[in-house]
Amino acid sequence: MSHSIDATHNPNLRSWVESANQQNIDFPIQNLPFGVFRTQGSAETTRIGVAIGDKILDLSRCYHAQLLQELPEQLQAACTAPNLNLLMGMETQARLALRHRLSELLRYEQQPSSEREILISMSDAELLLPANIGDYTDFYASIFHATNVGKLFRPDNPLLPNYKYVPIAYHGRASSIVPSGTSIKRPSGQIKKPENSAPSFSPSQMLDYELEVGFFVGAGNQLGQPIYVDKAEEHIFGLCLVNDWSARDIQAWEYQPLGPFLSKSFATTISPWILTLEALAPFRCPAFRRHQDDPQPLPYLCSSLDTNLGGIDITLEVWIRSPQMQEQDMQPLRLSRGSFQSMYWTLAQMLTHHSSNGCNLRSGDLLASGTVSGAEEGSQGCLLEMTQRGSQPIELPTGEARKFLSDGDEVILRGYCEKAGYNRVGFGECRGVILAA
Amino acid sequence: MSHSIDATHNPNLRSWVESANQQNIDFPIQNLPFGVFRTQGSAETTRIGVAIGDKILDLSRCYHAQLLQELPEQLQAACTAPNLNLLMGMETQARLALRHRLSELLRYEQQPSSEREILISMSDAELLLPANIGDYTDFYASIFHATNVGKLFRPDNPLLPNYKYVPIAYHGRASSIVPSGTSIKRPSGQIKKPENSAPSFSPSQMLDYELEVGFFVGAGNQLGQPIYVDKAEEHIFGLCLVNDWSARDIQAWEYQPLGPFLSKSFATTISPWILTLEALAPFRCPAFRRHQDDPQPLPYLCSSLDTNLGGIDITLEVWIRSPQMQEQDMQPLRLSRGSFQSMYWTLAQMLTHHSSNGCNLRSGDLLASGTVSGAEEGSQGCLLEMTQRGSQPIELPTGEARKFLSDGDEVILRGYCEKAGYNRVGFGECRGVILAA
Repeated sequence: MSHSIDATHNPNLRSWVESANQQNIDFPIQNLPFGVFRTQGSAETTRIGVAIGDKILDLSRCYHAQLLQELPEQLQAACTAPNLNLLMGMETQARLALRHRLSELLRYEQQPSSEREILISMSDAELLLPANIGDYTDFYASIFHATNVGKLFRPDNPLLPNYKYVPIAYHGRASSIVPSGTSIKRPSGQIKKPENSAPSFSPSQMLDYELEVGFFVGAGNQLGQPIYVDKAEEHIFGLCLVNDWSARDIQAWEYQPLGPFLSKSFATTISPWILTLEALAPFRCPAFRRHQDDPQPLPYLCSSLDTNLGGIDITLEVWIRSPQMQEQDMQPLRLSRGSFQSMYWTLAQMLTHHSSNGCNLRSGDLLASGTVSGAEEGSQGCLLEMTQRGSQPIELPTGEARKFLSDGDEVILRGYCEKAGYNRVGFGECRGVILAA
Repeated sequence: MSHSIDATHNPNLRSWVESANQQNIDFPIQNLPFGVFRTQGSAETTRIGVAIGDKILDLSRCYHAQLLQELPEQLQAACTAPNLNLLMGMETQARLALRHRLSELLRYEQQPSSEREILISMSDAELLLPANIGDYTDFYASIFHATNVGKLFRPDNPLLPNYKYVPIAYHGRASSIVPSGTSIKRPSGQIKKPENSAPSFSPSQMLDYELEVGFFVGAGNQLGQPIYVDKAEEHIFGLCLVNDWSARDIQAWEYQPLGPFLSKSFATTISPWILTLEALAPFRCPAFRRHQDDPQPLPYLCSSLDTNLGGIDITLEVWIRSPQMQEQDMQPLRLSRGSFQSMYWTLAQMLTHHSSNGCNLRSGDLLASGTVSGAEEGSQGCLLEMTQRGSQPIELPTGEARKFLSDGDEVILRGYCEKAGYNRVGFGECRGVILAA
């Protein structure tokens, strides 16, 4: 079970990779997130790696050094693939076996003679998309985000009547998902200013980020065969951070009646490391506690395990650094901090709903939560909410003001889990710099 | 140029494949549409084929019989691939060279000794998806459909203010696109009946088809590099028929504010044969003629060539056969007939708009037109419009009534082009039978 806490979570475990033993880092031996990389600047075939401290354990080289030979053959083959799709498609038991083997391999006592062969410095690696993403779906699972945004677009009608019943989502664009670090070109599009009677085509002036959590489909389902809520987590491989860049001015004009399209499809950035549900087990928490007047979810979205442990307490932060801040050697400014606990719908509910009509999910498909905003001040996951559509600009330490993103601004998402008695685990960063149109 | 009429369109051409020389068939030697097939019931690697009469020309076997050796090597390699993605990605010139070679190969005078090796009967073949479809986008390009549907969902506000400026579209689900002939399981979902205060989860009672035309992306574009309208058709490989099955009751409850999701993602059927733009050259016509009070498209969507020849006169039909009709050996009933000429936006405008924010399109991506409905009675491309959301049921020849689709109903889409002085070319059929939930 992905909720089970076992020996791999023991906070006393130390690794022979020294940098993994420091306090408050993202990638201690208890984390073991998966990614895909190659040597910086090379044209090598991509390989699967596991983040450990400031290093990457190269699974393909581990295989060739015969360090994985006790694992089932199919699993070994999946470890040498150029992306994570095969590994994602394997059953929970296989993934657990791999986790245990990796934890063992990296323990202090086990330092192998082949250390140099199987490790690469993160600074020498180029991190790529972890999977071939067949389809990308974006939810809208924060009721605080939905309410805040609803107020701006539909003051008289902020939260639509379906919200508390339906885990609302739309299909996103898979082709324009890029790994952290990719620069983001400001999109142009049709924009209709309130003072004009017709739209014009020009660069977006209301470019925004959206802080989200993504989750990758593990084992898929056949077309016509829904996944039931009490089995849903068996179909989730792991989580990453997602920045669903959004052009608000394009969005406002195009989104009716079929939803956002070009306002989102110019780019979506994901963090390179995928934290498995197994790694996140210690940080599970109850699902969102609904108001007593709120309707209960329909039965197909309910399971007692999910009610009790369907949430995950991930602290999520957004940081910004303007070109002026960079010139003046200032550190990024934290814009917001919230928790993934605040989501109205659980991962299991989103995945179950998605397949409830028989829609087939495939290993490597990406689902994202929608903007994570909390109830508290300072926990809003996008500028649209934070600046009230630009009416309350944010002041940067340089004295600059930001209603929306300017060219050269760098946005950094961070996420991590902390809990007394456990080692912190983190997602690393999800970064992107805005380029001029 | 894809608009050019050349020797391959000569109506006097005859083929040594006798069935291709009959009157009024879909696949004469002037058509030469591409598909992907394998021998029925086999587990063979899939191969590319060209429809000719009631036969399929096997391109892989043509290659091995050295019938393609005068073509560039890359093009030959693309002809032996397991799907059309590589061929789709080649430049217009290469596709034209292949078209000319195929036309030559199949001409009466050229009957090869290897005939038996390179031909397979359509009845012996299983036709599959023609490409690995990375992303699927569905437009809303018929103003008659948008107006008719708008009236039903928003009587006070049928056509939204953006419609005449923006080629409206949403991202669809790629994983659930299936080839013609695949049975369609009735989806279940959240449905809120007007008389109830809350939704319940049950099988859709308002299952509908949508008659659409799809087009496959040929050469793609890099992320951040828009495709300009006067180059847009160079990025289109060819066209097929699309049935965008829709559950209207699920759609009505879920679609705000982010658009249709589960009401569409349970299945989309496409016809197996892709007619290239080259094959369709004789049937080009002016783009939709806008009302004098309508706004002109913004400059990024305008080119004089597109205004003059951006349309395609494809006759499109929907046919139905209920289980009772089948038992009584009745032929299918034609429900509607319209023309693709009636679309408000051209293919070039849709593709240009899609990439105008820098979104990258990849070879094999599918774009669809949205429901094709005309101004005339009997030209509506879905039951929602034809039965006015079920209030005016259709009578079948058995005396049965249909508001929406019943279990066992078979829906057949057909499309073809006819013009004096040219041979008719057709799309074949796009079929699906509804299975119980």
